[in-house]
Amino acid sequence: MVTIALDAMGGDHFPKPEVEGAVQAVKTLGVRVILVGKEDVVRHELQRHPGWQSLPIEIRHASEQITMEDSAGKAVRAKKDSSIRVASRLVKTGEAQCVVSAGNTGAVMATAKMVQGMLPGVDRPALASAFPTLKGSAVMLDVGANVDSSPQMLAQFAVMGDAFARVSYRKTHPRVGLLSIGEEEHKGNALTHDAFPLLKALAHINFVGNVEGRDVYSGAVDVIVCDGFVGNVALKVSEGLVEVLFRQVLKESLKETLTRKVGAYLARGAFADFRKRVDYAEYGGAPLLGLNGLCVICHGRSTAKAIRNAIRLGKEFAEGRINERIATELNGRAST
Amino acid sequence: MVTIALDAMGGDHFPKPEVEGAVQAVKTLGVRVILVGKEDVVRHELQRHPGWQSLPIEIRHASEQITMEDSAGKAVRAKKDSSIRVASRLVKTGEAQCVVSAGNTGAVMATAKMVQGMLPGVDRPALASAFPTLKGSAVMLDVGANVDSSPQMLAQFAVMGDAFARVSYRKTHPRVGLLSIGEEEHKGNALTHDAFPLLKALAHINFVGNVEGRDVYSGAVDVIVCDGFVGNVALKVSEGLVEVLFRQVLKESLKETLTRKVGAYLARGAFADFRKRVDYAEYGGAPLLGLNGLCVICHGRSTAKAIRNAIRLGKEFAEGRINERIATELNGRAST
Repeated sequence: MVTIALDAMGGDHFPKPEVEGAVQAVKTLGVRVILVGKEDVVRHELQRHPGWQSLPIEIRHASEQITMEDSAGKAVRAKKDSSIRVASRLVKTGEAQCVVSAGNTGAVMATAKMVQGMLPGVDRPALASAFPTLKGSAVMLDVGANVDSSPQMLAQFAVMGDAFARVSYRKTHPRVGLLSIGEEEHKGNALTHDAFPLLKALAHINFVGNVEGRDVYSGAVDVIVCDGFVGNVALKVSEGLVEVLFRQVLKESLKETLTRKVGAYLARGAFADFRKRVDYAEYGGAPLLGLNGLCVICHGRSTAKAIRNAIRLGKEFAEGRINERIATELNGRAST
Repeated sequence: MVTIALDAMGGDHFPKPEVEGAVQAVKTLGVRVILVGKEDVVRHELQRHPGWQSLPIEIRHASEQITMEDSAGKAVRAKKDSSIRVASRLVKTGEAQCVVSAGNTGAVMATAKMVQGMLPGVDRPALASAFPTLKGSAVMLDVGANVDSSPQMLAQFAVMGDAFARVSYRKTHPRVGLLSIGEEEHKGNALTHDAFPLLKALAHINFVGNVEGRDVYSGAVDVIVCDGFVGNVALKVSEGLVEVLFRQVLKESLKETLTRKVGAYLARGAFADFRKRVDYAEYGGAPLLGLNGLCVICHGRSTAKAIRNAIRLGKEFAEGRINERIATELNGRAST
């Protein structure tokens, strides 16, 4: 049975969504969850779920807590008994396979990286984000763990993304694209020029060449590889655009006339469906790939459902042996 | 009266939208248009507009034409009498103030740059794109004229964007942001770190610091400064997302039940309104700023209306003396 170390003190509304998400997860996913945080706080919240004692849930005490205001550096240096640190240690020691946290993203990344270490052959971890596309889903990485990535790092991201798509989307030959500003090999910047031949040389990766920003949502590829600065901008621009489209402009536009008002009322259910498709909490958070162990980072405002979905993602990765796939591709197969 | 040199052979459906757009422009905007292209082709199209001879429109012959397949380099080297080259020369000699083309973007940029040259103090031109925001409009630059921009180039882009917002949005103190992955000064990559103090040092620019991708559409700033690779990705991701949202997913979603079908029917007018707001043909094309002369580049698939709007933008820039503003800021005022 897969064990998830869940940071119970990470999110904006801790520990309620974390505890509720954990209870939902153990009831529906066949996993075990270790809730990490201040024992009295976590236990108090668990009391709202009668019968929790008979579920595969336990509490692990951590005396400190990292806030959204703490810098990643401070979190790592000063708070040695933080919930995210203790949770990461559970993965390091093998007691759990995956850490899940809705805490300060920078602090979670720095802590997980320091405590768990990297997979052999990986220079830096990558934060991966799933996008809905016309044809299903695609994963983009890196979306913010690194800036000024090297060409070698992009090749490693390609391997990680390929493993993600194989495990999570059950694709046998995921299509991998390099995000650039034109499809031709010569279009791009210094980084993509240098990375292109490295991605092309990856023997077991179905590299289809450069893709443009519009391909992110078209479903042309399953994996989109990019530097973390570029990926973060793409992700945030998308979030901002969806927010504007649905929260304000469309609403105003629909209210202009009575006919439109009626239209808006009737179409409301459909909008809700659509927003759900683009809401990446539904995808269960963003995995930090390339670590020696698994880590899934959720939005600070995650609901219980988002926490549960992040746990499901961690379980999928553990059962799909995603890290073995990455390590084999980067270290083993090249020489066989 | 402002004179526009319009490439009549550039768009996907030339010369119809170009000629029709020119006729609309001279009738409604108080400008003069020189249509540049094969004389017989342009004249034949103009015959569809009876009475054109009495309008401030003339034809200038150019024997060659650049296609979407031509490389920018080839266009510049091999086709010395192309319509875009002849049109750019009209700006160089002062016969026109602005060149407008719906042709091959790379070729238009390379030709305009070579023929017109740069404004003093500008290293490289920047392609600017207007975005609809919650509060009106914002301009982003560069969106694809340059990759691997230097910090100095980003500072120049800030000055160009400020001038754009003053002239086009009539803002007296446009808010200028540097696109990064976090608002704090230390968040970003090597380029934004180095550019930040240069933007801060611009005496007459209202630099508000770093902005994130989500701020592009929120209206938090009037001008968004970034490297052309990053800006192009942001633009193309947005276009792709809007395309997917409206063309497919929403449509499918709305068709699920009869109620939703009715809702979709009633809301259709509102969707059309909204799409219009995000369709950047409405904004009249993307200006290439920093040249010694003006240049507006339209989509290949521009309609007559888009061509007319591009001409309007050129007129606005000429009358607002945008280039004098840029040159003064970069060369003059610093020492006064």
